[in-house]
Amino acid sequence: MKISVKECAAILKQQDNILILTHAHPDGDTLGCGFALCRALLALGKNARVINADEIPKKYNYLFEDMESKSFDEQFVVTVDVATENLLGELQNAYGGKINLCIDHHGTNTLYAEKTLLEDVPAACETVFRVIKELGVPVDKQIASCLYTGITTDTGCFRYASVTANTFRAAAELVELGADNGTINRLMFETKTKTYAKLERLALDGMHFHCNERVAVITVTQEMYAKTGSNETETEALAPLTRQIEGVEIGLTIREKADKTCKVSIRTFESVNASELANAFGGGGHPQAAACRFDCPVDEAEKLLVEKCAALLGE
Amino acid sequence: MKISVKECAAILKQQDNILILTHAHPDGDTLGCGFALCRALLALGKNARVINADEIPKKYNYLFEDMESKSFDEQFVVTVDVATENLLGELQNAYGGKINLCIDHHGTNTLYAEKTLLEDVPAACETVFRVIKELGVPVDKQIASCLYTGITTDTGCFRYASVTANTFRAAAELVELGADNGTINRLMFETKTKTYAKLERLALDGMHFHCNERVAVITVTQEMYAKTGSNETETEALAPLTRQIEGVEIGLTIREKADKTCKVSIRTFESVNASELANAFGGGGHPQAAACRFDCPVDEAEKLLVEKCAALLGE
Repeated sequence: MKISVKECAAILKQQDNILILTHAHPDGDTLGCGFALCRALLALGKNARVINADEIPKKYNYLFEDMESKSFDEQFVVTVDVATENLLGELQNAYGGKINLCIDHHGTNTLYAEKTLLEDVPAACETVFRVIKELGVPVDKQIASCLYTGITTDTGCFRYASVTANTFRAAAELVELGADNGTINRLMFETKTKTYAKLERLALDGMHFHCNERVAVITVTQEMYAKTGSNETETEALAPLTRQIEGVEIGLTIREKADKTCKVSIRTFESVNASELANAFGGGGHPQAAACRFDCPVDEAEKLLVEKCAALLGE
Repeated sequence: MKISVKECAAILKQQDNILILTHAHPDGDTLGCGFALCRALLALGKNARVINADEIPKKYNYLFEDMESKSFDEQFVVTVDVATENLLGELQNAYGGKINLCIDHHGTNTLYAEKTLLEDVPAACETVFRVIKELGVPVDKQIASCLYTGITTDTGCFRYASVTANTFRAAAELVELGADNGTINRLMFETKTKTYAKLERLALDGMHFHCNERVAVITVTQEMYAKTGSNETETEALAPLTRQIEGVEIGLTIREKADKTCKVSIRTFESVNASELANAFGGGGHPQAAACRFDCPVDEAEKLLVEKCAALLGE
């Protein structure tokens, strides 16, 4: 059942022991939502904590490192920025079918939760900001920084066409409430570790094209991690690079996992629906940024993807 | 003499034949200011045009390609986003000492004009937006797009620490007034020509470090332009790359000109004042982004710069 911001806040107010789940391979928006909401619920005197399936990249430590965790028995489970239950990763085993509330912004959301607050906004943090205001919690510097993080990371730092006047207004409010925009953007977008810089160079060296250069592909293998000292938590920034080349309409970043299966990030412009492409392989996402997984090696996944791209592009 | 937004608008209202000068090697902010102000003055029934010393990179064509130019004898000369007269490039010969009004946001502005409207804002377009509102001109889609262009380019798409709540509010207003933010950002930040992509790869391959890896240097030579088919108008995006490596505090991009002199872009973080470094060599700019010129070859310029960097960093 879909609910409004007001209803969402009313439901949360009735609960005391709340577990918040982010999606696997967590990014700035899911983590920003999770920790902002958790901080707001704690401020209301409730028990709350955030968990997720995968390691949180170190650059996000500021979202939570000052928080104390207290054990409690969860009675209410909330997902944030999670379009489908399988995006919970390993947490799906424990929580699949048991989600009480979902706050999300993906058009592909399957309404798997008992109640879903779904808004068409560029970052789920924009919606969580409204929920927190409705809860009546004063937004402090920490909450503001969590929310700003989600908005800036899911919009490529306000770069994407999805950004509206409301997104800019939310950012203005959050900066006024103390969000440290300069430092956050520097951490999120301006700082490349030397290991990442090496990985990026290797990945760009290997970038190749299909379908009359309308499709660009980057592959990241376990061997490349070994060679550069980098790892999977550092690959988030690669995906946007694929669609930066003039003439490219679909950018694919195929990451090999340790078990030789792979995960694919898809980036497109208006001419192609990324989410449609991801859907064809059981994934999902947004019109211009989506993802899917393959239980096969990188080269086979690339072949399947390129065939589908050719069909979509009429090549 | 420094003047206010109100005074600036009153002065412009009294003039009928207005020439607007941008700085040499024009960027999005100076061009956005120039064409937004020109369009506003034309809307008031005045004669106005924008000129500058160097070729305008093609990606900025949308700022002016729908405008008709009418010849007239200029009676009033305005500079926009021009900190010092020598930044006018070749136009300095004709207009040095003859500037009636300057609208700028550089702390290093030498107050060379008869009257100067100087505000401490991340992009001069933020100030021009206020001037246009004060002129009483309705801000149409074209003017909004010019102003948005200046704000997004001079803030690295809202990434820099200089961005304030007011900057975000100006962006919100401009998007509501019709600025095509998605398309503009795509043009400014997401589209790499194949020739630029090649140049970037060459430049990054040659990136090297000084002062315990606290200084990163990229050099761009005429030979590299020849090898990649790129040219100087495509180098603007290189400068920010220098300071993206972890641990780097000063990033230098040294571009060789056809006459073997060179131009240097300086990028820093809070620990070093870029404008102080540029000043030491007769240049100027902002605390974290500045520029200067050298009448010597690239390697000599690099030696001089690195010596000064070492002194600033205490290395």
